[in-house]
Amino acid sequence: MTKEPILDIAQLAHVEIYSTDVEGSVKFFREILGMEESHREGNSVYMRAYEDFYHNTLIITANDEAGLGHVAWRATSPQALERRAQAIEATGYGLGWIDGDIGHGRAYQFTLPDGHKMEILWDVEYYQAPEDQKTPLLNRPQKRPARGVPVRRIDHVNLSASETNENVKFLEEALGFKVRERILDGDDKDVAAWLSVTNLVHDIAVMGDALGEKGRLHHICYWYGYPQHLSDVSDLLLEAGFKIEAGPGKHGVTQAAFLYVIEPGGNRVELFGDSGYQIFDPAWKTIEWKDADLEHSIVWHGSNLPAEFFEYATPVRTKTPVE
Amino acid sequence: MTKEPILDIAQLAHVEIYSTDVEGSVKFFREILGMEESHREGNSVYMRAYEDFYHNTLIITANDEAGLGHVAWRATSPQALERRAQAIEATGYGLGWIDGDIGHGRAYQFTLPDGHKMEILWDVEYYQAPEDQKTPLLNRPQKRPARGVPVRRIDHVNLSASETNENVKFLEEALGFKVRERILDGDDKDVAAWLSVTNLVHDIAVMGDALGEKGRLHHICYWYGYPQHLSDVSDLLLEAGFKIEAGPGKHGVTQAAFLYVIEPGGNRVELFGDSGYQIFDPAWKTIEWKDADLEHSIVWHGSNLPAEFFEYATPVRTKTPVE
Amino acid sequence: MTKEPILDIAQLAHVEIYSTDVEGSVKFFREILGMEESHREGNSVYMRAYEDFYHNTLIITANDEAGLGHVAWRATSPQALERRAQAIEATGYGLGWIDGDIGHGRAYQFTLPDGHKMEILWDVEYYQAPEDQKTPLLNRPQKRPARGVPVRRIDHVNLSASETNENVKFLEEALGFKVRERILDGDDKDVAAWLSVTNLVHDIAVMGDALGEKGRLHHICYWYGYPQHLSDVSDLLLEAGFKIEAGPGKHGVTQAAFLYVIEPGGNRVELFGDSGYQIFDPAWKTIEWKDADLEHSIVWHGSNLPAEFFEYATPVRTKTPVE
Amino acid sequence: MTKEPILDIAQLAHVEIYSTDVEGSVKFFREILGMEESHREGNSVYMRAYEDFYHNTLIITANDEAGLGHVAWRATSPQALERRAQAIEATGYGLGWIDGDIGHGRAYQFTLPDGHKMEILWDVEYYQAPEDQKTPLLNRPQKRPARGVPVRRIDHVNLSASETNENVKFLEEALGFKVRERILDGDDKDVAAWLSVTNLVHDIAVMGDALGEKGRLHHICYWYGYPQHLSDVSDLLLEAGFKIEAGPGKHGVTQAAFLYVIEPGGNRVELFGDSGYQIFDPAWKTIEWKDADLEHSIVWHGSNLPAEFFEYATPVRTKTPVE
Repeated sequence: MTKEPILDIAQLAHVEIYSTDVEGSVKFFREILGMEESHREGNSVYMRAYEDFYHNTLIITANDEAGLGHVAWRATSPQALERRAQAIEATGYGLGWIDGDIGHGRAYQFTLPDGHKMEILWDVEYYQAPEDQKTPLLNRPQKRPARGVPVRRIDHVNLSASETNENVKFLEEALGFKVRERILDGDDKDVAAWLSVTNLVHDIAVMGDALGEKGRLHHICYWYGYPQHLSDVSDLLLEAGFKIEAGPGKHGVTQAAFLYVIEPGGNRVELFGDSGYQIFDPAWKTIEWKDADLEHSIVWHGSNLPAEFFEYATPVRTKTPVE
Repeated sequence: MTKEPILDIAQLAHVEIYSTDVEGSVKFFREILGMEESHREGNSVYMRAYEDFYHNTLIITANDEAGLGHVAWRATSPQALERRAQAIEATGYGLGWIDGDIGHGRAYQFTLPDGHKMEILWDVEYYQAPEDQKTPLLNRPQKRPARGVPVRRIDHVNLSASETNENVKFLEEALGFKVRERILDGDDKDVAAWLSVTNLVHDIAVMGDALGEKGRLHHICYWYGYPQHLSDVSDLLLEAGFKIEAGPGKHGVTQAAFLYVIEPGGNRVELFGDSGYQIFDPAWKTIEWKDADLEHSIVWHGSNLPAEFFEYATPVRTKTPVE
Repeated sequence: MTKEPILDIAQLAHVEIYSTDVEGSVKFFREILGMEESHREGNSVYMRAYEDFYHNTLIITANDEAGLGHVAWRATSPQALERRAQAIEATGYGLGWIDGDIGHGRAYQFTLPDGHKMEILWDVEYYQAPEDQKTPLLNRPQKRPARGVPVRRIDHVNLSASETNENVKFLEEALGFKVRERILDGDDKDVAAWLSVTNLVHDIAVMGDALGEKGRLHHICYWYGYPQHLSDVSDLLLEAGFKIEAGPGKHGVTQAAFLYVIEPGGNRVELFGDSGYQIFDPAWKTIEWKDADLEHSIVWHGSNLPAEFFEYATPVRTKTPVE
Repeated sequence: MTKEPILDIAQLAHVEIYSTDVEGSVKFFREILGMEESHREGNSVYMRAYEDFYHNTLIITANDEAGLGHVAWRATSPQALERRAQAIEATGYGLGWIDGDIGHGRAYQFTLPDGHKMEILWDVEYYQAPEDQKTPLLNRPQKRPARGVPVRRIDHVNLSASETNENVKFLEEALGFKVRERILDGDDKDVAAWLSVTNLVHDIAVMGDALGEKGRLHHICYWYGYPQHLSDVSDLLLEAGFKIEAGPGKHGVTQAAFLYVIEPGGNRVELFGDSGYQIFDPAWKTIEWKDADLEHSIVWHGSNLPAEFFEYATPVRTKTPVE
């Protein structure tokens, strides 16, 4: 009989990004994406979308280069947190426990083999709406903002890695992620992999870094739920002078409606317009894209991806010219 | 430290409904909802939506009354199946193992306290698309039908019960369902509860039967993912002479875009136009609707529900006139 | 050979409404419907939607009762304006010329037989966006506001009349409107009629006043173009404490996606979520709804209309109780 | 005082295209775009969309090369037809009267300066739904087909011309079209122009032929009214093996949601997902796109246009290689 699945990670809790222009970033997430500022402390601003239930899902920290601060996962139980901490400790990638941070308690920190910093936690602080933000729609933590085209919740994070397979294997074995879809090269090695612990097609993706760099952030993604909002926010973005890197379009992988834009702090942000498809099958067989099928993998229809999409990640690095 | 959650049920696998007009039912699901016929055997026709991955998700069985045949759940592992069978056995509601049926293997059968028949299974047969139905969108099991306004996958089942609380408790304790939202009466007893094992707000709901009947089916639901399709299918339904019972509208509970219609075999069918919101929080605190809040619970906006909505379930029973 | 059609009226230019709460009205149109304030003068505030090309399309004037100030039509040419002024003069309903008002030049004023005040004009002042509101989308007069769920343009006006037929006949004969759809009673008299000079199904509708009052306003309507925005604005309305009178739903007449709400100044506002169908046929034969067909006339699917819909108009009057 | 506008042309009535594969074309328009076959005669098949009110809006005629047969316009009155025939006669581009064809009566034929054949007519045959196609939605000429993703009505035609300005001038002066938007080159000559007689931004467009050819067809366009349907039909197209040339995306010019595909008979077909904006202003000042603004003219957001878009027209011609 097969080994039982690891069901210890519940969800993506928050992401910290480094911004070279914190006020520009905050304005972008606030005025265009309709997000709320939860807190400021030190060099960091804490934000959340209006249907995020926790204190924050995004931390924007001032830095001289854009990039990833850390990714936080919530465990399925206090016991699950301990189990994962022990399992990661055994891999040699553990960094140890911290007492907590704004919005959450004790957390176990570690890195991916490629160096991306992460943490797992159980105790979280829930967002409490002030009286004037309470809504009769009881399953919504606050009123829908009448500002920008407001995103609803955090969706996923996508990392660039110098080598894909080792990181994917770590996420599978140490954390219990399942590989939902992957793109393979001619030697059947991962070029990119989409993994989840939820019914979403991915909570995290890992893509090979075209520049061979380590530990970079490809993008973070917030969710709308309705494709129309990608068209709506495109108006705001274009009229505010932003360049839409790609989209609105529809992915093959995940089937989600997408749009990519670089926020003022330098990081790529993806916006999801729908749920794509969802995976409930507990014995899901990874979808593998290669060779001729690749044509439909990243883009099913709509927008093309520029070459930059595969090279730009944060911190920003330039392709070394061939001599 | 709190007990760890039961994570043994993965998803709703299929639902069997009884139909007083099997050919009418099949035509409805096939021509209007764009579903596919997988198999016929004995008095039953097996069907699936085009993004359902298994052999079937709907079984329509000829009967002299409409109603629920059974509801099938897939476990998260073979071990999880054994654990649940033992736990149910201990409750006294177990019916025992069957060898399997069209599209799946060995299953453990039982009833809810109210009498609704259910089963849990692990082995499933996957749908294999014939050559001319294969699509370059590799995560879609077959091409999108160019027929009707095709639903994408099974979503949930909603049961009417003579008494709500006991059945909800059974689903929580014996199967590991979490109560995501509930409607309470003046005595804080459940009038209705929405439960899930997935990130959906509900895989199953239990509502008090206004006629006090036992074991009735309120509705089954298939999913579109886009609200526009509720408007599209409304055209087809109305022009084919169907009466839309309610919708398109938007629920408060689940936040989903909905539409209700009675299929020719007598059962109520719900169609979901979007994903509503989703629940990733492993310590989700049940949303409770009561008193003044109830106004926004079933319908957030759009269509009203007729009185019939709370009384009609299958098998059809008539309200006993007050003497 | 048939007489040639009158093609002298081009479009609905603006509507003046009376408000018992001007600041409440302005806040509603500005914060929720994303409209812009163009000007204030005397007891009036002038507003426009972001894709309205003229200086204003809505005038909100303080008054002790809600209701209609006047409706303004733009002629197809200066010559057309003169022709219509002469034709109306001949009917005895003319009020004469005014020199102009904020945003437009010389206008010929008159009333409908039921007393609703109207005017026809040619010279208009175009909205000129300030530098920071200019958009690279050159056919859009200003940037899309990042405030509320912004309506795009004025759509139509709907009047309650003590007697329908006489007013419809006046609009046809004196102004050249074509009756696109009508609802007839058992005696084949108009209960309601939808008329246009454009390709829209209606620029104006006239409905019988259930209370037998004269000269009341049933509603004014602004246009979104996308049904999703009716769902979006419903969130804002409900969370701001407004009661949605009806909708989102889909009309039979016009096929348009609709929503009705009473603005703080007392007047009913309709929001259109799409274009419905459009009429290009120059010999259009009026669609007639009566008897059994009526069931699908006002509402094709979705929301029902409350009884109030047929009685509430402004100024507000109460049904005389039957003794 | 300015001259009064010519208001003699009411709408685009139908378009005849030449197909190198009539059965392939018919299957495409029928199975994927859900259109109906009205009639067959000689080498031609007559079709219409389900909300087209006339007998046909598309004629597909067998030919050894793809391309334009002719474009038919309906006049605003019998008198208007006579006036236009005389005006065109005077230009020297008249071909004379024909007695009529399937679905319409007497028509005056002519060519554009570039050679594209056209006709104007008044008498039309209306589509009469057979009993089983009648719908309770009385303003819809027949039931919505449950086949493919059905388009609702013809929208516009787009012609490639060896020289743009002369043809645009002819459409303005002889037919009364108004130039709604235009793209200008460095010498302020038209590269492309969008013209209409209706409230649509264009009933016809004329674009410079990159290969310098005369009389070619760039595309015909049918209308959905909802952007979602462009995504839906993309699924059908891609899974049937069609290559989507561009889209779904959103135009700057017209603001319409678009998709382009080549039908099996060789002609480009555009599908419109919404109404874009509409023009009611009788003194509309042409929107002019040039220099830096051009970036946003054809595509506002979403899909890019391939180089082929500017060269491919029918009959198909190859770019003469530079020696």
